[in-house]
Amino acid sequence: MIFQQQFSLQTQGRGTINITREVDSLVRSSDITTGLCHLFIYHTSASLMLCENADPDVRSDLERFFSRLVPDGDPLFQHVDEGVDDMPAHIRSVLTKMDLTMPVTNGSLDLGAWQGIYLWEHRHRGHQRKLAVTVTGE
Amino acid sequence: MIFQQQFSLQTQGRGTINITREVDSLVRSSDITTGLCHLFIYHTSASLMLCENADPDVRSDLERFFSRLVPDGDPLFQHVDEGVDDMPAHIRSVLTKMDLTMPVTNGSLDLGAWQGIYLWEHRHRGHQRKLAVTVTGE
Amino acid sequence: MIFQQQFSLQTQGRGTINITREVDSLVRSSDITTGLCHLFIYHTSASLMLCENADPDVRSDLERFFSRLVPDGDPLFQHVDEGVDDMPAHIRSVLTKMDLTMPVTNGSLDLGAWQGIYLWEHRHRGHQRKLAVTVTGE
Repeated sequence: MIFQQQFSLQTQGRGTINITREVDSLVRSSDITTGLCHLFIYHTSASLMLCENADPDVRSDLERFFSRLVPDGDPLFQHVDEGVDDMPAHIRSVLTKMDLTMPVTNGSLDLGAWQGIYLWEHRHRGHQRKLAVTVTGE
Repeated sequence: MIFQQQFSLQTQGRGTINITREVDSLVRSSDITTGLCHLFIYHTSASLMLCENADPDVRSDLERFFSRLVPDGDPLFQHVDEGVDDMPAHIRSVLTKMDLTMPVTNGSLDLGAWQGIYLWEHRHRGHQRKLAVTVTGE
Repeated sequence: MIFQQQFSLQTQGRGTINITREVDSLVRSSDITTGLCHLFIYHTSASLMLCENADPDVRSDLERFFSRLVPDGDPLFQHVDEGVDDMPAHIRSVLTKMDLTMPVTNGSLDLGAWQGIYLWEHRHRGHQRKLAVTVTGE
């Protein structure tokens, strides 16, 4: 069996959004009991991440770490048409990836107790982001 | 067809463990000839990695590289409840990922000659780590 | 249904090669309408990446960023048998990954308008690189 559905999300600028509930709800509606859930984001300046879901400091620490690792406005970058956060957004997306695959067990998403799925917007401005969930299995 | 099985592994603290044999053995037991093998770790402070499997120096170099890239006890971090390696473990996991998908061909895992699958424990203390193998195909 | 095919590519040394067309052509030949396309590279010194496909500066900026992040000849590295780019190639591959899964919709690869699939050769010398495309779905 295969289930596939796209959905969209409006971001509010750089930062993470917990989308575990949205993804799990699509998995449950797929009527697939055992298999895999693939999540995809159709962009190159926002990404997907599994991350600790309990302490918000984890995500603000991650944000500060990536801001230091890939500094906005770094003179290294020539691709600056859309601003100081343009190229950093591409690099952060490459480092954190645009695809993510997780187990489906007993008809729902099977994550660890402390794992949450996050959409990470890397641009300073908010964007409409398009994603797809594909569930395969039986 | 779909095959799914969980297994656990006790780590001995920060470092890598070659789990290629365990994963391939589950793939072989699945009776799936052609398809995909998905490996997942249910944690956010340990990760999965394909890496060169011949020279142990590659993994000790990786360890030193990541220790320099994401320093334990970095004053940048506020999430320090579990110690100086707590937040670095989350970041190292985000950078190396918790999911991994590989081809299955002729009834076994199909990797390159120099590729091995490693569980990377990022905490200083050993932990019981839970993983799942899902095989899909025909 | 499952479709699996290997193919090879000669690289010309460090740099990225757009392989979107080759992958999509295999997806179209699979006769699978809805599902997933998994791409795999059988090496540990070259990787796969989704990246902005319009402005070549994005990829030269990425190249410069990774050259600074993982410097060739870094005295940190002990695995240097094959030269100054040996260990950096392994680390760059671990950071950018050797597997990639994307949606298949209406019988072809379903990417965002600005997403392209790139093989990233991390060694200075060109290499023959082997890849596999696996398509699952209906």
